[in-house]
Amino acid sequence: MNKAIEDRLHALECRLERVESQLELYQALSTYGPAVDSLSLDLAASLWTHDGVYDIGDERFDMAGHADILDTLNADYHKDLVAKGCAHTMSLPLIAIKDQQAIGLGYHRLYTHEDTGFGLHRLSVSRWDWVKESGRWVATRRTHRLLDGSPEARELIRQTLADMQSLKG
Amino acid sequence: MNKAIEDRLHALECRLERVESQLELYQALSTYGPAVDSLSLDLAASLWTHDGVYDIGDERFDMAGHADILDTLNADYHKDLVAKGCAHTMSLPLIAIKDQQAIGLGYHRLYTHEDTGFGLHRLSVSRWDWVKESGRWVATRRTHRLLDGSPEARELIRQTLADMQSLKG
Amino acid sequence: MNKAIEDRLHALECRLERVESQLELYQALSTYGPAVDSLSLDLAASLWTHDGVYDIGDERFDMAGHADILDTLNADYHKDLVAKGCAHTMSLPLIAIKDQQAIGLGYHRLYTHEDTGFGLHRLSVSRWDWVKESGRWVATRRTHRLLDGSPEARELIRQTLADMQSLKG
Repeated sequence: MNKAIEDRLHALECRLERVESQLELYQALSTYGPAVDSLSLDLAASLWTHDGVYDIGDERFDMAGHADILDTLNADYHKDLVAKGCAHTMSLPLIAIKDQQAIGLGYHRLYTHEDTGFGLHRLSVSRWDWVKESGRWVATRRTHRLLDGSPEARELIRQTLADMQSLKG
Repeated sequence: MNKAIEDRLHALECRLERVESQLELYQALSTYGPAVDSLSLDLAASLWTHDGVYDIGDERFDMAGHADILDTLNADYHKDLVAKGCAHTMSLPLIAIKDQQAIGLGYHRLYTHEDTGFGLHRLSVSRWDWVKESGRWVATRRTHRLLDGSPEARELIRQTLADMQSLKG
Repeated sequence: MNKAIEDRLHALECRLERVESQLELYQALSTYGPAVDSLSLDLAASLWTHDGVYDIGDERFDMAGHADILDTLNADYHKDLVAKGCAHTMSLPLIAIKDQQAIGLGYHRLYTHEDTGFGLHRLSVSRWDWVKESGRWVATRRTHRLLDGSPEARELIRQTLADMQSLKG
């Protein structure tokens, strides 16, 4: 094959793989809400690696591994939210990708339905750490910190922005 | 043409078409809010096929076809929302695409401006069913169910997740 | 090089550049919130050209150029928001791109943490005007109008939709 053609094909393939990864990560992010809000819990857990961590900034609910995530999402606290009406939504995230590793950063909101109408129950900064395993992006860790003025949320944002710079090299 | 080159070009073209479709569907979703919030109603209706259905989970406002959609968006209820200040926003959706057919799933929020400030008036799960007609993605149906604890919303999410699996085959 | 191959490679390269631009603009949009909410102000300012304008629809805070943007984001008003907890989020925007120029249109929300919980403090329509400089998309102007029922917000949406049509030609 002509070297000039080979080079252009290879460049296109690399660029397209980068684009596809960003869209696949968007898909992963937008799967979480519908999965947990409909109690499709296996689907929710499948967004993590087998031993992936879900740290929501509340020690009572820290989770490590699929069994732990399933237990927490199966608990009354979560089922009660779903029963009264809720939505777990994620803003369009900032994403950094390098080879088989990626980081995402955005805002997570938990809305609940109350007697007085719809309310914003929790608002957190949300960081995702992903690896590509067998051609699929899965989370090794998701970290939330409530945006209630505590320094932990600001620190999580700053650290994640720095880690994104390092990742891209 | 060399078979190896032809195969790689063809693979790139197919993958890129998939990527472009996902971005075009994002564009369709993000057109709806600005269109209805500025009373650019022809633009809003053009997001559906000529006989497309808009089922917002409230029989008083069910719509089938462009004329019906235009009538509802031209009604006082909607014009009053716009006059006092409102925003129809859609979360980053999960999307499944197969050939000329696609399904989207996310959350729709209607914010209104009240004397007491901005409020979340409606929060719904939102499903889009699209077909590609003459090279353009248009909705055959958009379905909303209010996330107020009623089982219909959870059922819509579950059914849509299952239909997405079937679509991808 | 064979003309048929050259044509297909060139078409792929142009389409992919368009796709990458849309994703880069998504990245720019999703950088703003984490930057200002963590007081990473140089990163926030870098989203604009050196003399870029940030018009938030409140004359007290209009900004032109990096120094001006940094001054405003460094002021007590903004630092107090960050200290009590806040999130600046942007909805998935509608985007129009032509060559080295682009326009984005979506909704901006400023959430704050109050004694009573999380509240939606400001809800605006948000328009971005970008140019591509040295291979990077930067804003020449960002314009907000509060969705409080004033005609300016509706007019900004309509004008932006019209400008997007003109841009695409």
